[in-house]
Amino acid sequence: MTTTAPAGSRDLPHPAREEIRLEGVLHALSDPMRLQIVRELAAAGGEELTCSQFELPVTKSTTTHHFRVLRESGVVRQIYRGTAKMNGLRKDDLDALFPGLVDALLAAAARQSSRLTEF
Amino acid sequence: MTTTAPAGSRDLPHPAREEIRLEGVLHALSDPMRLQIVRELAAAGGEELTCSQFELPVTKSTTTHHFRVLRESGVVRQIYRGTAKMNGLRKDDLDALFPGLVDALLAAAARQSSRLTEF
Repeated sequence: MTTTAPAGSRDLPHPAREEIRLEGVLHALSDPMRLQIVRELAAAGGEELTCSQFELPVTKSTTTHHFRVLRESGVVRQIYRGTAKMNGLRKDDLDALFPGLVDALLAAAARQSSRLTEF
Repeated sequence: MTTTAPAGSRDLPHPAREEIRLEGVLHALSDPMRLQIVRELAAAGGEELTCSQFELPVTKSTTTHHFRVLRESGVVRQIYRGTAKMNGLRKDDLDALFPGLVDALLAAAARQSSRLTEF
C-alpha cells in the first residue's frame, strides 16, 4: 500500500475479549506447533517472548503464520516494542471467558507430551 | 489406524485409546456443529444416539462428515446396531487420557452458548 500510514499503523489487529470464540481457540490449538508455542508462553509465566525465541522445526514464514492464527483467534497478543514483535498469552482474557479451560488444555498437552516421549 | 471393534465388515474404524491425539480432539471440536453434537451426546449421559436424533442445520452428507471427523479423532464411537448407526461419546477414553479436559470443554461451550444467546 502506498497511502500514508496513520499513527499506530503497526498495531496488529486483535479480537476484543468478547469477540473470542471457543471454536477459534480450539482450532488455533489443534496444530502441534501452535500448541507448543502456547505451552512455551505459558511456561514463561506472563513474560513476553519474541518469535525467534521459539525453536520450531519450521520456516520463518510458517512460524509467522502460526503466530497470526494464534493472534487472530485471541490466544496470543502480539505487540511491537521498538523493532521487536513481542508475544504474550492472553490468559486473563481466556480465563475470564472460559474459567479453567486453558489450564486443562495445558495439563492435557503436558500429559500427552510425557506419554509420547516415554518410548 | 487400528480398530478396537471386533471383526465385521460393517464395523467402522476407530483409533484405539492410546492413538487418540489432543490436537485431533481439538480439531474435531473446533467446528460449531461438531461441538454441538458433542454437547448433545454429553447431555445424553452415556446413552447412544442415532445421527438423525440431532437437529443440525446442515445436509445429511455434511452431518455424516462431521460424525466421521468425530469418530476418526476418537471423540465418538459409532456402532451399528441392526440397521441403525449409534453414536456415543468416548468420555471414558478421553477422561483417562486427559483428566478434566472434556468437562472443561463442555463447561466452556455451555458458557459461550449462554453468553451469545443473551442478546
